[in-house]
Amino acid sequence: MAYTLRELADAASATLRGQGEVEIDAVAPLNRAGPRQVAYCASSRYRALIATSRAGALVLHRDDSDVFPGNALLCDDPRIAFARIARLLHPPGPIQPGRHPSAVIHESANVADSASIGPQAVIEAGAHIGDHVAVGSGAVVGERCTVGAFTRIEARAVIMHDCVIGERCVISPGAVIGGEGFGYVREADGRWTKVPQLGRVVIGNEVDVGANTTIDRGALGDTVIADGVKLDNLIQIAHNVKVGEDTAMAGCVGVAGSAVIGKRCMIAGGSGIMGHITVGDDVEVTAMSFLKGSVAGPGRYSSSLPAADADVWARNLGRFRHLDELARRLRRVEQTIKQILSGGNH
Amino acid sequence: MAYTLRELADAASATLRGQGEVEIDAVAPLNRAGPRQVAYCASSRYRALIATSRAGALVLHRDDSDVFPGNALLCDDPRIAFARIARLLHPPGPIQPGRHPSAVIHESANVADSASIGPQAVIEAGAHIGDHVAVGSGAVVGERCTVGAFTRIEARAVIMHDCVIGERCVISPGAVIGGEGFGYVREADGRWTKVPQLGRVVIGNEVDVGANTTIDRGALGDTVIADGVKLDNLIQIAHNVKVGEDTAMAGCVGVAGSAVIGKRCMIAGGSGIMGHITVGDDVEVTAMSFLKGSVAGPGRYSSSLPAADADVWARNLGRFRHLDELARRLRRVEQTIKQILSGGNH
Amino acid sequence: MAYTLRELADAASATLRGQGEVEIDAVAPLNRAGPRQVAYCASSRYRALIATSRAGALVLHRDDSDVFPGNALLCDDPRIAFARIARLLHPPGPIQPGRHPSAVIHESANVADSASIGPQAVIEAGAHIGDHVAVGSGAVVGERCTVGAFTRIEARAVIMHDCVIGERCVISPGAVIGGEGFGYVREADGRWTKVPQLGRVVIGNEVDVGANTTIDRGALGDTVIADGVKLDNLIQIAHNVKVGEDTAMAGCVGVAGSAVIGKRCMIAGGSGIMGHITVGDDVEVTAMSFLKGSVAGPGRYSSSLPAADADVWARNLGRFRHLDELARRLRRVEQTIKQILSGGNH
Repeated sequence: MAYTLRELADAASATLRGQGEVEIDAVAPLNRAGPRQVAYCASSRYRALIATSRAGALVLHRDDSDVFPGNALLCDDPRIAFARIARLLHPPGPIQPGRHPSAVIHESANVADSASIGPQAVIEAGAHIGDHVAVGSGAVVGERCTVGAFTRIEARAVIMHDCVIGERCVISPGAVIGGEGFGYVREADGRWTKVPQLGRVVIGNEVDVGANTTIDRGALGDTVIADGVKLDNLIQIAHNVKVGEDTAMAGCVGVAGSAVIGKRCMIAGGSGIMGHITVGDDVEVTAMSFLKGSVAGPGRYSSSLPAADADVWARNLGRFRHLDELARRLRRVEQTIKQILSGGNH
Repeated sequence: MAYTLRELADAASATLRGQGEVEIDAVAPLNRAGPRQVAYCASSRYRALIATSRAGALVLHRDDSDVFPGNALLCDDPRIAFARIARLLHPPGPIQPGRHPSAVIHESANVADSASIGPQAVIEAGAHIGDHVAVGSGAVVGERCTVGAFTRIEARAVIMHDCVIGERCVISPGAVIGGEGFGYVREADGRWTKVPQLGRVVIGNEVDVGANTTIDRGALGDTVIADGVKLDNLIQIAHNVKVGEDTAMAGCVGVAGSAVIGKRCMIAGGSGIMGHITVGDDVEVTAMSFLKGSVAGPGRYSSSLPAADADVWARNLGRFRHLDELARRLRRVEQTIKQILSGGNH
Repeated sequence: MAYTLRELADAASATLRGQGEVEIDAVAPLNRAGPRQVAYCASSRYRALIATSRAGALVLHRDDSDVFPGNALLCDDPRIAFARIARLLHPPGPIQPGRHPSAVIHESANVADSASIGPQAVIEAGAHIGDHVAVGSGAVVGERCTVGAFTRIEARAVIMHDCVIGERCVISPGAVIGGEGFGYVREADGRWTKVPQLGRVVIGNEVDVGANTTIDRGALGDTVIADGVKLDNLIQIAHNVKVGEDTAMAGCVGVAGSAVIGKRCMIAGGSGIMGHITVGDDVEVTAMSFLKGSVAGPGRYSSSLPAADADVWARNLGRFRHLDELARRLRRVEQTIKQILSGGNH
């Protein structure tokens, strides 16, 4: 589907410079875009690349308008404008309503006529699949689950029984929603007795869950993922966690049980969030950090430890292992100097 | 299914106070429990919440008996007593024996009549599925695997060929048991030659494996997970690892190849265990730590690094990068003071 | 299949000592090998174990030839020689060409006659499955994907639409290739607008991808995994990452978006690689480290923090939290001493 540059400028709230009637089919990288494609440049650092671009138009910051003589869409935030244009030119593929004959749909399941159920998918007893939902190849929707309109459950994702997924969500391939929480009590002899996990996972609207990410069901109450939350791949969300609106977590984050995370937080990749803590709104955690205690928001927290040359690292690490002793030695030095200065030791 | 309070008190070895004939249907959170439900309170800190509870009975520590005037089950460990009651009131759903017509069961597989094989499941050649085993939707049990009685293989879990799973285990959705170990030798030119992975995964009884957790098969010998081990979600167990009885690991732990871990260990979330090390019995590792060397048990080990305000963190980290130099400067200061005190420098 | 010792010596470029006509069926661990099996010993530290071995032959380093009186294959690198022998004695099982009747293969897919499509697998529209490819139980190959000759797509792996997999690769169970990248722009109100992920994942030849590992498709360009790369389990590769030839990554590594990693790198388990950085050829990163900035190769980088006794750790950590203050105190001490030595303070 093609749009004119003028239409794209309107969609992106950008100022059009040049030929508004030029037709554009697609977005493309700056160095590969052709005359029917639009590219963007976030920074004038790429001036050289821009100058040679064959793109039909460029999305540019207003301040960079001089770096390119051709058609341009000028704006204050090229990334946001380009995202709007990309969404317009590349909408998600249409959903083909229907049920693949190989899918197994329980007779008591309630599947909207407009929904698409892919090959080898399983819809278990009592599940409710809303309008325009797409269930991908081999995905499993468990007993009595509810999946809201326009949500995509991608290939081989699993939604376990009684969970609730809102509208316009994407549950990526291999994700597991509603596995049993890791709840045990320890007997006197060291054995573990399982505590039944009786809650659900309740996911709001416009939530994205990444590939092979796992979200456990609550023990008594529910695990709750609020509207607009975005979770990347291979994230672990333990039982009874609450994640507030529009919070985003990058890959490989782990959130331990009963943690309560606020709105609009950003948790960078590989970080861990301790169980039973409360994290305020607008908290950022840097990559590979361990948030161990409750924090109010807004704020930025870190225990990232950037890698150094391994020999240098080993030397500093060797000192770290005796840091307490080092601090004590410094204290003694300070005391001795004090005595020297007071004349007491001479 | 309902039980009287007296029956629940007996099951939990608790002291009944109040009306033993009251019928209870379910457990519930303290703030939501009604007259036919039982709740628990682990601490008298929640005194205010307790006072307003409408629960049919509360499970309380003997010392807290005065905080609630109603029916109570008094005990020494409310969490354990409550877990026992919850298991009684909420047993796992019954397994419906039978084979879904969409399941593919190889003619040479040996499946107990009492087992349940779900839709789209695959049971490959020579597999042995024991009594009362439940194989969930889309799960795969590979060639010549053995699955012991009462074990649940949940939706989309995969057991690769020749692996052994004990009795009363739970293999959670998406878990992969018996993938090939990461075994290569490096050629002179930097290329990797794969070493055939000829061992199996052997899992004992009452082992739980979390969602999307992976356990690789051994290279020559087997990877062994002993009775009673509990593994949370997204854990990686590499080839030839041995995990001792009743050891528990929380989410996102990684255990490298040939590590031998003792009994009753507790490895908190996000931690890593180095390959080829030996970890004694009753060892605890705190969250997000890296156990690099062998340790005897019992003991508690940590390299957790709790996050701080990012600016404070950056300042301390800047010093850490020069810790070796800082230690050398302190040494020089000490020597200089020694000289001062001995009068040598004056 | 049996080989004579002489044949094995030739295959491994080893020097035969003893009876060349002895027939060998299998490899086995040193302590369990019988007369028709071959074992190896990487180090003469295991002298005691070697002396009692009943193996038909041992693979030994030339310098250790005296530790075992029986048949031996002497070489410079027992691990490599043994790997060659193991590959010869234990080749991958033959692929049975054919399509299981339960598999769903779209009429527009192009599947080689020599390929094997397992039970419950799904081959979507326009996919191309090459010669001798094996697609395991329940695996999904998406629309317009290409899978090269002799590649194995194991049980329940998912290849999303338009991705390219080379020849002789192994995509392990549960892996997800081509999930949508984690790409959003943040609106002024904190909400996230998704950026369409229009690229592919392009995987070269002889690439291994571990169980439940995820590799996201590119946003505009492609995510590229070059020939010979080996990825262990539960690794996250974000959109637009490039991984160079023969680089290996151990379990639980996370690579953030647009990172470019060189050839022959070795990234140990649990490490994280920052987005948008460039890592040179032949770079090693130690376990549980965080490579935050670009580095040239060759080199070895670390921020591994080995666990210590938890009390010792707590004391050192307490000092670390005041390291900046400690450094300032040392500075003051040095200045005071300078004044003392110059006589200014007396």
